[in-house]
This record gives sequence, C-alpha cells and structure tokens, in this order.
Amino acid sequence: MPLTLDSLLTAPLLTTQAMQAALSDTARLAAMLRAEAALARVQASAGLVPDALATAIDAIDPASLDAAAIGQATALSGVPTIPFVRALQARLPPELERHVHKGATTQDILDTATALQLQAATALLRTDLEATIAALAILADTHRRTPCAGRTYGQHAAPITFGFRVAVWLTGLAEAAANLPLIALPASLAGPVGTLAGLGAHGPAIADAFAQELGLAPAPIAWHTRRHAVAQAGFHLAALVGACAKMATDVAHLASTEVSEAAEPYIPGRGGSSAMPHKRNPVSCTVILAAHAAAPGHVAALLAAMAAQHERPPGLWHAEWHALPTLLSLAAGALHEAGTLAQGLEPDPARMRHNLDATNGLLFADAAAARLSPLGREAAHSLVEHAATQVRGTGRHLRHILAEDPRTAGIDLAPAFDLTPAIEAAQPWIDRALALAKNSPHPLRLGEGRRDGRGHEHKP
Amino acid sequence: MPLTLDSLLTAPLLTTQAMQAALSDTARLAAMLRAEAALARVQASAGLVPDALATAIDAIDPASLDAAAIGQATALSGVPTIPFVRALQARLPPELERHVHKGATTQDILDTATALQLQAATALLRTDLEATIAALAILADTHRRTPCAGRTYGQHAAPITFGFRVAVWLTGLAEAAANLPLIALPASLAGPVGTLAGLGAHGPAIADAFAQELGLAPAPIAWHTRRHAVAQAGFHLAALVGACAKMATDVAHLASTEVSEAAEPYIPGRGGSSAMPHKRNPVSCTVILAAHAAAPGHVAALLAAMAAQHERPPGLWHAEWHALPTLLSLAAGALHEAGTLAQGLEPDPARMRHNLDATNGLLFADAAAARLSPLGREAAHSLVEHAATQVRGTGRHLRHILAEDPRTAGIDLAPAFDLTPAIEAAQPWIDRALALAKNSPHPLRLGEGRRDGRGHEHKP
Amino acid sequence: MPLTLDSLLTAPLLTTQAMQAALSDTARLAAMLRAEAALARVQASAGLVPDALATAIDAIDPASLDAAAIGQATALSGVPTIPFVRALQARLPPELERHVHKGATTQDILDTATALQLQAATALLRTDLEATIAALAILADTHRRTPCAGRTYGQHAAPITFGFRVAVWLTGLAEAAANLPLIALPASLAGPVGTLAGLGAHGPAIADAFAQELGLAPAPIAWHTRRHAVAQAGFHLAALVGACAKMATDVAHLASTEVSEAAEPYIPGRGGSSAMPHKRNPVSCTVILAAHAAAPGHVAALLAAMAAQHERPPGLWHAEWHALPTLLSLAAGALHEAGTLAQGLEPDPARMRHNLDATNGLLFADAAAARLSPLGREAAHSLVEHAATQVRGTGRHLRHILAEDPRTAGIDLAPAFDLTPAIEAAQPWIDRALALAKNSPHPLRLGEGRRDGRGHEHKP
Amino acid sequence: MPLTLDSLLTAPLLTTQAMQAALSDTARLAAMLRAEAALARVQASAGLVPDALATAIDAIDPASLDAAAIGQATALSGVPTIPFVRALQARLPPELERHVHKGATTQDILDTATALQLQAATALLRTDLEATIAALAILADTHRRTPCAGRTYGQHAAPITFGFRVAVWLTGLAEAAANLPLIALPASLAGPVGTLAGLGAHGPAIADAFAQELGLAPAPIAWHTRRHAVAQAGFHLAALVGACAKMATDVAHLASTEVSEAAEPYIPGRGGSSAMPHKRNPVSCTVILAAHAAAPGHVAALLAAMAAQHERPPGLWHAEWHALPTLLSLAAGALHEAGTLAQGLEPDPARMRHNLDATNGLLFADAAAARLSPLGREAAHSLVEHAATQVRGTGRHLRHILAEDPRTAGIDLAPAFDLTPAIEAAQPWIDRALALAKNSPHPLRLGEGRRDGRGHEHKP
Repeated sequence: MPLTLDSLLTAPLLTTQAMQAALSDTARLAAMLRAEAALARVQASAGLVPDALATAIDAIDPASLDAAAIGQATALSGVPTIPFVRALQARLPPELERHVHKGATTQDILDTATALQLQAATALLRTDLEATIAALAILADTHRRTPCAGRTYGQHAAPITFGFRVAVWLTGLAEAAANLPLIALPASLAGPVGTLAGLGAHGPAIADAFAQELGLAPAPIAWHTRRHAVAQAGFHLAALVGACAKMATDVAHLASTEVSEAAEPYIPGRGGSSAMPHKRNPVSCTVILAAHAAAPGHVAALLAAMAAQHERPPGLWHAEWHALPTLLSLAAGALHEAGTLAQGLEPDPARMRHNLDATNGLLFADAAAARLSPLGREAAHSLVEHAATQVRGTGRHLRHILAEDPRTAGIDLAPAFDLTPAIEAAQPWIDRALALAKNSPHPLRLGEGRRDGRGHEHKP
Repeated sequence: MPLTLDSLLTAPLLTTQAMQAALSDTARLAAMLRAEAALARVQASAGLVPDALATAIDAIDPASLDAAAIGQATALSGVPTIPFVRALQARLPPELERHVHKGATTQDILDTATALQLQAATALLRTDLEATIAALAILADTHRRTPCAGRTYGQHAAPITFGFRVAVWLTGLAEAAANLPLIALPASLAGPVGTLAGLGAHGPAIADAFAQELGLAPAPIAWHTRRHAVAQAGFHLAALVGACAKMATDVAHLASTEVSEAAEPYIPGRGGSSAMPHKRNPVSCTVILAAHAAAPGHVAALLAAMAAQHERPPGLWHAEWHALPTLLSLAAGALHEAGTLAQGLEPDPARMRHNLDATNGLLFADAAAARLSPLGREAAHSLVEHAATQVRGTGRHLRHILAEDPRTAGIDLAPAFDLTPAIEAAQPWIDRALALAKNSPHPLRLGEGRRDGRGHEHKP
Repeated sequence: MPLTLDSLLTAPLLTTQAMQAALSDTARLAAMLRAEAALARVQASAGLVPDALATAIDAIDPASLDAAAIGQATALSGVPTIPFVRALQARLPPELERHVHKGATTQDILDTATALQLQAATALLRTDLEATIAALAILADTHRRTPCAGRTYGQHAAPITFGFRVAVWLTGLAEAAANLPLIALPASLAGPVGTLAGLGAHGPAIADAFAQELGLAPAPIAWHTRRHAVAQAGFHLAALVGACAKMATDVAHLASTEVSEAAEPYIPGRGGSSAMPHKRNPVSCTVILAAHAAAPGHVAALLAAMAAQHERPPGLWHAEWHALPTLLSLAAGALHEAGTLAQGLEPDPARMRHNLDATNGLLFADAAAARLSPLGREAAHSLVEHAATQVRGTGRHLRHILAEDPRTAGIDLAPAFDLTPAIEAAQPWIDRALALAKNSPHPLRLGEGRRDGRGHEHKP
Repeated sequence: MPLTLDSLLTAPLLTTQAMQAALSDTARLAAMLRAEAALARVQASAGLVPDALATAIDAIDPASLDAAAIGQATALSGVPTIPFVRALQARLPPELERHVHKGATTQDILDTATALQLQAATALLRTDLEATIAALAILADTHRRTPCAGRTYGQHAAPITFGFRVAVWLTGLAEAAANLPLIALPASLAGPVGTLAGLGAHGPAIADAFAQELGLAPAPIAWHTRRHAVAQAGFHLAALVGACAKMATDVAHLASTEVSEAAEPYIPGRGGSSAMPHKRNPVSCTVILAAHAAAPGHVAALLAAMAAQHERPPGLWHAEWHALPTLLSLAAGALHEAGTLAQGLEPDPARMRHNLDATNGLLFADAAAARLSPLGREAAHSLVEHAATQVRGTGRHLRHILAEDPRTAGIDLAPAFDLTPAIEAAQPWIDRALALAKNSPHPLRLGEGRRDGRGHEHKP
C-alpha cells in the first residue's frame, strides 16, 4: 500500500526499471536543465544573453542538485521551478546568474521538461512495442492454419485459427504503434501570461528556435491553458494499455484450467501461490489487466484539466502532474508483459483441436445453417437451433441429428463440418495484419524481438 | 431527473434538435437499412444475391418499422439486429428474404450503422465548429489591441490583450476541428467470428466494396473486439467539449460581477432567476461546463471496453452503446453554446481598462523587475516583491513606491508601465492563431458564422 | 446509437419500464408539483400563504402540463423550474398565483423533486433487490454441499461448494441492500443564497416542516453546493451494479462452453444469434456487465461536481443531472437481470464434479501439501509443485505420483483427496451469509422471490 | 514528472510526511508482520501452532527485511506475500518455520495489512480533519454577522454573511468526518479459496479471533472478491477531498484580484512566481484543487474492480493497489492545506462591504421584489428585472430607480436594502452547523486546532 508503482515491493512487478529511471527526480532535473540551457543557447544566438551561459548550465550535473531541498522549497513556492532556478543560479558565476530563465515562466520549464521526458519515455515504449509486434507477427504466421474455437459471449461460435486471433492482437498493437507520435508535447516558451512579452520582438523567433534546439514541435500559441496535447498523450498511453489488455483478456481465458489452449511462458518461480503449489498463475495477464483497470481514470482527469482558467489555473495544471507519469509507468509495465506473452506464449494446438470437438459439432452450426439456406434463412436457422438443443440434450453429434431430419434430404452437409473453409477464410486477414505491421508509417524494426525471456528478476 | 439529454424538459437546453434527430431510433433504423442495402448491393455485384434485394431494402421507410416491437424482441435476443433482420425479412418478397444479411453478424450491422450515424453527427459538429471558429477569428482580430489583465492562479499577472485570450480559445477549437476526422469508425463486415467465412473467398473483396459503397474506411481486420477507434472517437468528442470548456471557464469568470469584462449575449428571457430578477446568469457557460464535467467518464468507459474478450464479449460492446451517443449529444450542446458565445459575446474594453488599473501598477511588476535587472535578477525580484507589499498596504501606485527607493536611481521605470509592449507582444501569436484557423488541413469555411443569435427557443 | 437507455430499440433490454416511468418527464413534473404543494402546505400552517394554495396545486395533473413548452423555455432560462413555476401560476386563480414558490429558489424545487424521485426509484430497487437476495439465499442453501472447483487467477485452486460461491454473491447484494438508505437526498429549501432569507424568522421551521411533510430528511444547512449526498447516492448505485457484476462475471465464466457449470435460465428466443443458431448467449450477464462498465464514470462526474462554487455554480449542478438518472436506469436493468439469474440459474452439479476431476488431483495440491507439512512447509510445497509438473506432463493422478515419492512414506495422503473437508469448511460461512441476509438492519422480506421468469418481453 | 506524490521535488507540496511514512515500504512490511504475528497468536491459543511463533515474529524489525529483494522476487511470484513469507521463515528457528502463515493465502496477508495501514492513515486524517473543523467553527462564529455578497452562477445574488459561507464548508467537512469510520476494511483470513479449509473446523473462530486481535472488523464471509468496502473507502477519501475542494473553489475566487475578500495565510516565500514578484498565488487552493481533479478516477477504478472473478481474479485485485495509497496521499495533502486555510485565512470584511455596494443595490433585487409582491409575483419580478437593466446602464442605485416608478408608490422599499434581515437569516443555520460539528457521532475534539501556521517547509 505504498505508492505502488514506486514501492520497492511492487514496482519490479508492475513497471520497468528503465521507465522508473526516465521518470526519476534526476531525470526531471536533467530535463529542466536542458530546457534552461537551450533557452540560454538560443538567446545567446540572438545576443540576448552571454554565450557562456548555456555552457555553464550544461556543465551542471543534475544529480548534484539537492532534490530534497528543492522539494522543501516547492512546498512554499507551489512550483519546483522557482527553487530550481534559485539552485541553478547559485551554481553560476555572478555575471551569468541574472541572465538565467530570461522571459520564461515556471510552467514553461516544467512543461518543456515533461515534453523532453516524454520523448525519452516513448522511445522506451517504442522499443518494447516493436519487439512485441515482431513476436506477434511470428506467432500469427506460425499458427495461421492452427484451427481453434472462435468464441462470442464466452461461448463457442465458429472455428477460426489461432493465428487469426493473434493477428487481431497484432493489429491492435500496430494501431498503438502508429499513434506513438501522438504521445508527445510541444516545447513551451510563452512567459508568464503567454505572450512572451519579456523578450519583446524577439519572442516568436526565440520560441521557435528553442523548440528546434530541443527537437520538439513548436506551439502556435501558448499552451499553458490549452491542454489538448496533454490529454491526447494520456489517451494514447491508456489506449496502448487497452490494446495489451485485449490480448491479456484472451490469454487469461485461454490459460484457464478448462480451456488450457495456451499457457504463459514458463519461468521458474513465476506465478506460484503461497498456498497452492500446483498453481501457475498468469502473472503477465494480471499485471496488464491491473494496469488497464487503473489507466482510464487518469485520462478522465486529464480531460477534466482542459478547463484551465485564463492564463494559468489554480489547480488543474498541478492535477496533470499525477496523471502522465502514472500512465507512462503503467504502460511500460503492461507493454513489458505483453512482450513477455508475445515472445513466450505456449499455445497448445492439440488442446485447441480437442476443444473444437467438445460441442459435438455445434461449432459448425453456422456453416450448417448456410448449407441449409435453400430452405429459407429463417427456416434453416430454426432447424439448426432445434437440432442444437438435441445435441446438448443427447451428447450426439450435430451432423447426425441434422442428417436424420427429412428436410435436409438431398443437401450435402459434410462440407459444413470441414475446418478448411474456416482456415482459408482467416488467411487474407492474417496477411493484411502482417502487412500492416511491416508497413506502418513509422516503420517498425521487426525481427529484433527478444526471445530469451530474461530480465524477469527486474524488468530492464 | 429523466434521462436528461432526452427529456422534453431539459434536452432543449443541453443538446440540439439536429443531433437528437441524428441519434433517433428512426435514424438508427435508417442506418441499419443502409448497411443491409449496401451489403446486398455489393453482394449482387459479385453474383451472390439477387440484384433486386438492395432495391427492395432501399424502398423500406425506416419510420415504418415498428421500433417498439423490435425493442421488445431485443429484450430477449440481446441485440436489436436480430429482430431488425426479422422485421426486414417480413417486408421482402419470399424469394429475397433468405438473401438478407448474408455472411454478416449482428455486430457488423450495428457497428456499421454507428459509423454511418457518426458521419452524419460529425457533419453537424463540423458546421457548428466552423461557425464558432469563424466568429472567434473575428473576435480575436477585432480585439487584438484591446488591453486587459492576464490572470494566473486567479490573480492579475501581467497585461495581455483580449484578442490574444480569444486566440488561445480559437487555437483550442482549431485543434478540435483538425481532429474531427478521428471521430469516425470504419465499416464492419467480418461475420460471426471475424473471418467473414460465410462469404468464402469473396470475403475480403466484399468487405472492401461494402466500406466503399458506404463511404467508410475499410478495416484491415475485424474490429469487433479491437476498439481503439471507438475509444478514440469518444476521446476527441470529450476533448472538443474540453476546448469549449476552456472558453466557458474564462467567460464565466469574465462575466462575474466583480470582473464584468464580458457578458454572454443578451437574449430576452435568458439566464434569469426564479428568485432574483436582476440576474443574468451565464447559461451558455453553464451548459458547456456541465457537459465538460459529464464527458470524461464516458471516455474512461470506452477505454475500459477495449479489453473485449475473444471474438465478441459478454458486456463490453454493449457498454459502448451508452457512451458514444451521450458524448455526441453533450458535444452538440456544448458546441452550440460555444457558438453562441463566439458570435454574441459582449466584451467591455472600458471595464478591462478599469480592471487593469485596479492593482495600482502591480500588473506591471514583472516589467518593472525586468527594468531593474541590472541590479541582479534576485535583487530586482526581491525589491519589487517588497514594493508590492507596500502597494497592497498603502493603496499607492507601484511606480511611485519604486521611484522612492534609492536603488532605482538612474533607471527609467516609465517604460515598465506602458501597455504598448504587452499589446505588441500579443500580435504575432494572434496572427499565428488566425493563420492556423484559416489553413487547417480540413479547411474551414470561415466567414459563414451565424450572427443572428436565433434558434434559442430550441437549438436547431 | 440513440440515447441507449431511452431508445425504443434498446431500453427494454437495458433497463426496466418501472424505472423509466419513475424517471419520466411526467414523474418529474409530479415531483416538482409535490414539492411546491408541500411548500404551500407548511407555509399555510404558518399563516404565510392562503390555505387554498396547496389544494389548488394538488389538483393539477402533472400530465396536463406541457413538458415540451416548459423545455423550450428552459433553453432560455437555463433551469426548468422557472418556466415550470410560470406554468403552475397560469393554472392558479389570480389570488393564489403570487403566493407560489415563496422563498424558494429554482434549485430547491429541482433538488427536492430529485429526492422524491429517488425515494420512488430506490423503492423499485429494493423490491428487486429483496427478490434477488431471497432467490440467492435459496440457491446457496440448496447447493451448500455441491462441490465445485474454486478458481483463482482463472485456474483451479481448491474445492469449494457452489452454495459457497452463491453465498459470496449474496453477501455482496446484502451489503448493497444495507446501503440502499444511503441512496437518498434530503429536502432542499434554502432560497436563492442558502439562508432562506425570504421567509425571515420562519425559515428554519418551515424548512424542517417541508422536509417532514415530504417524508425526506431535513438538511442542517443549505446543500445547494454541498453535494456529498448526491455523490454518495451515485456511488451506492454504482456499487450495487458492481455487486451484480461480481455475480455476472462468475456466471458468464461458468456458462462458457468449456466450463458449462451453469446456464442462464432458458427463455425461448433469448440469447440467440443472427448468425449462429446454436448459441445461447448469456444475455443477463451481458446487460449487467455493460451497466458495470458504464456506471463508474458517472460517480467520478458526481465527485467532480462537489467543487461547486459559492452559493450555486455555473455548470457543476447541471452536470449532476446527467448522472443520477443514468445510474438509476443502469442499476434497475442490472438488478433486474441479477434477479433473473438468481431465480432461474441452472447449475449443473454433474458438470461441476466432472470439472473437479479434470486436473487429475491438482485441485487437492494444497491439501496434499498440508498433509506433507511434517516435511517442512517449504519442502512440502516444493515436493507438490514438482509432482504437479509431472501430473501435467503425464496425465497421471497427483495421488499416485506423490505416493511414489519415498519422502511421502508413512504419510496418509488419502484424506487430502477427500472432498468432505472442503464441503464442511464452506458450511459455517454459508450460514453466516444466510443469517446476514435475513437479519439486515433494513429487514428484507425474504421468500417472496419471483420464480416465474416472466416479464422478459419487457422488464416490468 | 516522476511519480508526483513520491517525488522529492513535489511530494512536500502535495502530501504529508506523516502519510508518506504510513504508506512506506517499511510500514507495509510492519503491517504484514503484524498480520502474521496475530495469526500465530490466535492459532497458538487454539493449540494449532507453538506459542513461541508469535513472539518470534514480533521480534523481527520490519526495517531489517530486504524490501528490494522481496520486490525482485515479487516480479516473479506476482504477489509480495510469497517472498515475504520466505523472508520471514528465514528469520525463524527451524522448528517454527513450517507453522508460519498457516491456512492463510497471499491476499489475506496483504488485505489485512492494508486494513491496518488504513487504520493508521485515517487516524492521521482524523487529526487534521478535527483541527480543520475546529478552526472553521471559530471562523464561522467570528464572522457570523460579517455581511458579504452571496453569489450564484458567478454573479452577485443576495447578501449572506461570511460566517454562513464558512458554515457550509464546515458542514461539508463534518460530513466527511462522520464518514471517516467507513474508510476502513475488515480483517481478511479466508484461505486460498475463501473457506479457510486449511484450518478445518477451527476456521471461523480463528478468523474472528484474528480480527479481534488486530482491532479490525471481522468479515461475514471472504471478501477476496467482494470489494464493496474497498470501493467505499476510496469513495469517502475522494469525497473528503471533494469537501476540501468546495472550500478551495470558493477561496480561490475570493482571493482573486477583483474580489479580494479573503487571502490565503501569509507565509513568507509562499505563492511567489518566478516571473512576477508581486504575485501571491493561492497555493493551498492549488494543491486541493489538483487533488480533487485527480481523485475521482481512482474511485472509478475501484468500482470497476468490484467485478472480480471467482475466488481471486487475474488483475482486478492488483488494480486496487494503485488506488487506495494514491487517494490517501491526495487526501492527506488536500486536508493539510484545508487546515492551513481554515486556520490562517485572512478575510477582509471591509472589502466584502465594498463589493456589496458594487452593483448599486442589485444585490437587494430579490428583497425588493419581495417588498413589491403585492403587485403580483410576476409583475414584481418583471418590474425589478427592468429596473436592474437601468441600474446597469446608468450606474444609478436600484433604490432610486424603483422609487421613481409610479407602481411602487406607497410601498416602503427601504427595508429591502437593509442588510439586517440577511444577517439574521444566516444565524440559525450557522448555529446548526456549529452544533453538528460539536455533536458528531464520532465526537470531534474541537478546540485543539493548530494556529501557528508552522510546518510548511515540509508537511508534518
């Protein structure tokens, strides 16, 4: 019950070390320093501050700043930027001190730092996402002709192939990958009330150069209280978790005792129980589904924060501070486990085949009704519905029960019970999904998937 | 306390008639008929069904279907498509009946109908959004040099212009306009388990032709349980409301008694009070802010619904049914009122000027500190902070108090109290916002803004 | 895609007619009339208005008021109370007209009407909830010794009884029943700014009498902007849906093809598929789980609305209007289906027994490890874990594999594979749950449960 | 952008040290040890384990356990309890080792630890809440006759007193205090599948004794997947934040430049701006409103988690781990700042009086209309509405404009412009609020409020 994503006890399960590092206090201070240095650099180019300023800022080790002392002062000032700038000035020679932070406001530095950290964080997500997609592409291709039951409302509906199911997961993650560039924020340099008046006529050019210097998009006008991009970044993080959760929902069911069509990768010691030595709990699914339950509320908070008053609001900006890092941490943990699943999932084609037979042909009811369509759609549907009741009551096979009905005389029902059409029907869709994964606008470097299953002591 | 967006008592306040019509049962049945007709048409082209089928479906008046009877049967079937298809078949000649709905599943028809209704609904939003943006562009341009107080944390911070503030609103709505194309869904034709196996080798081609016939995007693979697009549509609707809410938050404060820098458009009878005859309540802001508080929860529900099990889930698809129409209704109402504000807002430049003077020069403290920067940033900041305390204590003007301090000797403070730099600083940003509005990738038809304020008895 | 809970096409599936009636425009107008009549009555007792006023208001048929006209005027006024009071005055003799609504404000009448409608609505919920609890009590008692697999993380864990599982559902619903009294609001009579100044020294006494007259709790001080009770009512509605959803989650899994331990009650025509004639989809679970996904966002909106500004806010009160009726409608639909499940669920004890055997004794692994505890907890655990791997690999029974291990020599393992201890262990908890259901502080009228399964064409 | 509530940079602003300590890893391990020790103690009383076990567990210093190592193992096991029990066993003599954790499951220990931490955490909240209520009671009493403008929809409506406004805040917090006992969880001891079968016939008695030993409520039946209490605890935490946010919303507006009726307590260095030396930002309001925007999403997540499958779910329990500690941290921070406001708020009665006069009598329009009620309610309302327009247009006083209207002849309007009735009307409600605060069912220790404003460097 400590803050779960930061707790030594639970963070290794629920997020990754790499994301924790990207969101650490040191990383934040480093990003704030980068923002101030970039500001100094572009202002020096315009002759507004000494050339030496940027170099002097660059020389400061973020780890050498006293985060705790800055935090104590933040409790007074309300924003870390104020004590941060003071700490920064204390490190500079007297002749440079007064040139720091020129024209900027607290929110500029924090929002720009967030934009920079988001760059680093999404790069981490991209790596894991590409590996996951690559592994799913292999899995979909490998099992493109492995028949299994398609399920709707929890019940057997009609046959599909396991590769097709994986292709749906894959397409969901490819969508998330295509939206990764939207998990980004522009640079912020707008000054206390958004007009960057402190820089006079230099303002717009300096703001543009500042963004370019940092590799961030420029904003057309202050976004201190225009927060679409923040909410959008949060949405796409939650949607990424959602795409993982689609897969995890399916896998958790496939791994359930009665279904047993797939198991999470076997990792010694994983998924055990303190009480039940035989258990092999789906830990990856658990982590993903927990993240998925937790994520949407943060998006709601970011949307609510769009109603920010005037030039900067009392509260709604601070409210965002909670949401983005949490969503990034959740997404990192979920995606890491999605990668584990994609790379190590153990499908059991024999069991899939076994389950296909479990309903005595009911799975082919749709196909049978189609064969019977000369009787009229409604009549065929009703005839099969009636036969299905008999199948359930007697345990006999649908094919035999239908064959006994005089109305089916002269209709060859055999093709309805052939898996081939279901397998064939799945192929072009799998092809499309694989093509999508390979030809995304932000081309994925497929084929570099992790296959070793390592790193489970603590996520890298 | 009836369902508020449908109640005769409250819907006219909170949404628009046009959106209500776009979401009516008749519109839904019409969209379902369009989907079935398109399916028939493309299947006829492939020789799968008779040519007459599509024509026969086209001839059915959706209003002639018994929605209540279909609904009664839906309580049994769980999905309206089943009784709908039966009702449709009952209207067709016997030789066509069995060809209807071939290969499709219930969700295909409902999801495609939703996609079609979303097209119509976003067209309504586009119209209102363009009018709003056009009106805001005029407002921003008109008041580009009207000075007013910039406010942060609810307090006067530094001067801006009213046109600049409007330009921020405008940019927020232009972002929403640029994202309107994302409030869309692809066509759905995937059959019971997503492989469209019922159409055999024809499947993918028919699915593509079906989408094209309806003017919808095709899906690369079944999206029955891949719901990113649904969540994304919901997000952008809520974000549109959020962009309106940014404006409404500001206007509600500007319209408050002590500020009085702007009033909602005067419409006889609007905004009165049962108890207080003098009140002119900001009704447009109220409607927008209510929509904004209600919208985010629906996005959270849509995100949650992404974890849909296997080929079709027990519950999460039905959960979506609540969210999208509510979000569309909220967005329509909020946007309508945003348009009312944009077109009829009554800014009071004299009052803005009066308020600028209210703090005896404190609004220029930032500029004064900048003028004093030769003393060192920290020293200048501290000197002004101290002077500000005196201003608040004595009611004297900051300029005079600063002038009395010996440390300011030889520094010309007058420029700090000149509004011109603040006005000039705002201009390029306003220009950028106006350019953005005019050159959006989905070009807005500016200049066609509604200016009459009509339609308030009931929103058109 | 119309507003789903109001659509003729979908409302019969998703909510109840009785709740729709309780939330109708006519019911709302009736509640507003009751509020005004009660105000008149208590003011007449104090000599403030003529005695005839209350009688005259009582005589007005709410259905005779023109809801549409009031709604049109609401689009101007911002609150339905203003045109409602005008419509009411138009029905009164001239000498009474000016006495109506004395001292009250718009929000008083609407909030009090909401409180009254909530009384009626929760009475409906109570009836369904009691019937559901009664039916679950019978089900738990009937199957108190029916063994089945207990499942954790989707996997067989150890044996329980089906009655125990039902007892957990039952306890969840009994908790919801115990909290029904919290789905309530006090009367509101506080005047425009909360002090009821219009009634002078009569204020507090009139406010108390007003509440008593209506059978509502009095408020200690104006709750126009103190909205804990509203959020709390919403929370307990969503929590009621959540308690239903716990049951539905379990039932949907039990009804899934591979598990098949229970089926939703058979109702001809229910749960079919347009494409798959053999399907028997869990429609009740679907409705409940859809409600559960939709409900939490409304609670979040009500919590957000607690930050209402000053004496009455621009927006946040109106935001509540969306949430409570939606939550009531969702709860009514979910609870109705929970009742259907509780009363008609078809458990399959033979299948439960079959599934217990499916893992070749792994379900008894915990008990086996306990028998082996003389070896040391860790050693026993490890020995069983190892044996479990062999069970899964060989398909042989755990008992035999353990017996072959020399370390188990001299330990009688047979009791570990006996179901009796698991059955016995469940009994006292079932007893407690049944006692809880019977002795709730708001005693449930058990034993009156609906058993006929009727009413499914449209929920009563 | 680190996890904001844990970051050294921002935690001191947003939560309290005491709450951080209550939620620390060490506190969590201590609570887990307490749970295991209590289990040992009650089992020893029943002769199930050696007496020495509990004493041996008590002797373990939680800080001596290696939280990081446990966390690394948690990444494998999925639940910290498993490595925790192993670490615990490693500390015990061989003869005790196998008796630890007897009959319990992982979730029992973690849920019971959460219940214990919640006890400690709510004790912290209670202390701050009582101090806040005590301070508000003084403030309400002190200003019970200080007139100020009542505001609805952001506009002046009618006069109230500042003490009345505070009494509304006070009542909101007293409601939260009355609900503090609902921020609690029962003990959990139910074993792997909820029947506590591992303890045989001892089960229920041991479970009851376990709860009593820990000072927790017993559960009638396993609550592993019956999570009403968890959601309820979360709701009341968010509602507590909401009650603080009501106050903060009002204060932020009162502190805004044009209103200036109250200022946050002056604390040197607090609320400054990096750019604007004169600013005194409402930092307390900012912290509270940020917490309020962030909190509701967590309640939605907890409600969603109620649909936990079977005996223990894959995901939804883990989802809760994120919510409760975050809500506790947010509540602690918000309540601390509410206490700061309650104890140090600086109301400005002179400014309140000034603002009352700012609308030239419009604030008395309601009272004036009441005086004119002999003309008929509608006529009086309309006459005053018309006069209000003239007041706004001319800047003349309402009293004079009304006096000039011939219809007012013979009516003494003077009392309408007297503040006394508004002041008197407020008194009984303030009395009720004060009585409520003093006589709560969980009596508050009023009068011990913090008054020094210390502790702002870091919250205690």
